[in-house]
Amino acid sequence: MSLQTANGKKLYIQEVAPRDGFQNEKQFIDTDRKIAFVDRLSDAGYAKIEVTSFVSPKAIPALRDAEEVMRRIRRNPDVVYAALVPNVRGAERAMDCEVDEINLVMSASETHNVANLRMTRAQSLAQLADVIASVSRERVAINVSLSTVFGCPMEGDVDPYQVFELAARFAALGVHGVTLCDTTGMAYPSQVARIAREARKLFPTLTLTLHFHDTRGMALANTLAALDEGIDRFDASLGGLGGCPYAPGASGNACTEDLVHMLNLMGYDTGIEEHTLLDVASGLPELVGHALPSHLSKAGLRSRRHPAPGSRPTP
Amino acid sequence: MSLQTANGKKLYIQEVAPRDGFQNEKQFIDTDRKIAFVDRLSDAGYAKIEVTSFVSPKAIPALRDAEEVMRRIRRNPDVVYAALVPNVRGAERAMDCEVDEINLVMSASETHNVANLRMTRAQSLAQLADVIASVSRERVAINVSLSTVFGCPMEGDVDPYQVFELAARFAALGVHGVTLCDTTGMAYPSQVARIAREARKLFPTLTLTLHFHDTRGMALANTLAALDEGIDRFDASLGGLGGCPYAPGASGNACTEDLVHMLNLMGYDTGIEEHTLLDVASGLPELVGHALPSHLSKAGLRSRRHPAPGSRPTP
Repeated sequence: MSLQTANGKKLYIQEVAPRDGFQNEKQFIDTDRKIAFVDRLSDAGYAKIEVTSFVSPKAIPALRDAEEVMRRIRRNPDVVYAALVPNVRGAERAMDCEVDEINLVMSASETHNVANLRMTRAQSLAQLADVIASVSRERVAINVSLSTVFGCPMEGDVDPYQVFELAARFAALGVHGVTLCDTTGMAYPSQVARIAREARKLFPTLTLTLHFHDTRGMALANTLAALDEGIDRFDASLGGLGGCPYAPGASGNACTEDLVHMLNLMGYDTGIEEHTLLDVASGLPELVGHALPSHLSKAGLRSRRHPAPGSRPTP
Repeated sequence: MSLQTANGKKLYIQEVAPRDGFQNEKQFIDTDRKIAFVDRLSDAGYAKIEVTSFVSPKAIPALRDAEEVMRRIRRNPDVVYAALVPNVRGAERAMDCEVDEINLVMSASETHNVANLRMTRAQSLAQLADVIASVSRERVAINVSLSTVFGCPMEGDVDPYQVFELAARFAALGVHGVTLCDTTGMAYPSQVARIAREARKLFPTLTLTLHFHDTRGMALANTLAALDEGIDRFDASLGGLGGCPYAPGASGNACTEDLVHMLNLMGYDTGIEEHTLLDVASGLPELVGHALPSHLSKAGLRSRRHPAPGSRPTP
């Protein structure tokens, strides 16, 4: 299994804190500081950064500066700069800012889609099909993030074939990638293995991403299960930023530094140095005004050495 | 791999909070409350409970009531009641209280052994050999917990063959079980797989336990790696109680409810219901006077349902 065969295998780590994290913050984060944050992430070795969301400023005031952030960040040519887009209007705004990739979103479960997007899944599908058509002549990659793939906090288990049917519809519409999202931390390793295996079999040409939350502590275990099925692309959020409205106080997204630390130790090539991440993450609590669930920020890297008791520090 | 083949496989969960957790608490926990806590754990379905430690009351005042706790707890015949024993005097005290199993402890790394036990490893080995000899005519099981197996916070990497040599010495002295402890959360999945596989090969007749800490967020991922190598016995601590003096504020032991929740979802037979654990765990913050790192206590079980927004609760 993959535990023994990492052997320098290339993995793609995609940072979602500037979008999935910041959108949940009650206190508005200054535009200049958002830009400085993304600029520091740009040199960390990520494959992709989800920068912002071109939604209505009324719906998500935290990201009302989407245009300015997207236009003013420094672009590293090795990084894909993505933005979430809910509709044709959002796609136009994103195209005006020359995003590399647009990320569409809808839920695998009907109740969550209605709760989160105020639309039925059929309405979401139609709306997102319009978005895809509207950018079909642009040079932009299109990814769709499917929420509640591993369980819905309102409905419970979600039939994987509902998920695959949605993915197939989007594949037919021409999306390049699909992200399977564990929106509220309901995924568990054997389920992840099963769904990842089936998804790879059904969609060999789609770029598959797994997006875990650590709500119930299983984000890294689920990553292991996905790796074992050949998944090589993961969303994560610096500091574990990002929450879940259904579990106040609980951990949010899979924490990038915890994830990268584990993967690097196992011999994967993430392209990211944990030191860089810890350095950027150290400013996050001040930036967002609260503590974060990151383990590594508290404990330090595995390679950290402590002096033996009684030993004297060298002068 | 084990992800698909759990299929009701029996796992043995061993609770260490009353010893490994309580020993780190600054505020003395009332003896009656300790007993009530262990009594509630006794009905939860554990294979083993490490109840206390027969160390010098001066060394660990938090457990100065070892005799009283051990004598007054109610014994469930399906549970092994273990206690930590550092020396012959401790073994005598434990035998007087009729413990089912004594747990010996020393470190795989020299520096940690000296720091933690104020002895060289050679001295620890000699002292523990005396303990084993002293109880050889008693009907008591003997386990040895080896610390820093997956890394030492002062020395760094630990040669697995140092660990296996120690385990072989103890096996020759007649111990029944060996626990491989990740004392400060330095284990990572591929390393766990390698060491677990080798240990099972070298010691087919010893009862092997894995003891993880969640200091760097990898406790559940490491458990997955160990399961995949056929390990079926795990220490864990309710609420994630138990700390690491080298990482203040960091998570402690693997959290029992988080662990059991994942294993049950995967189809293993832990014999434990998460509801019971959450119920007992809910009293822990008040008992110890501080918050605990448990994910499940914050987020609730995966099976928890939330009402859809706008839906009305039934009257």
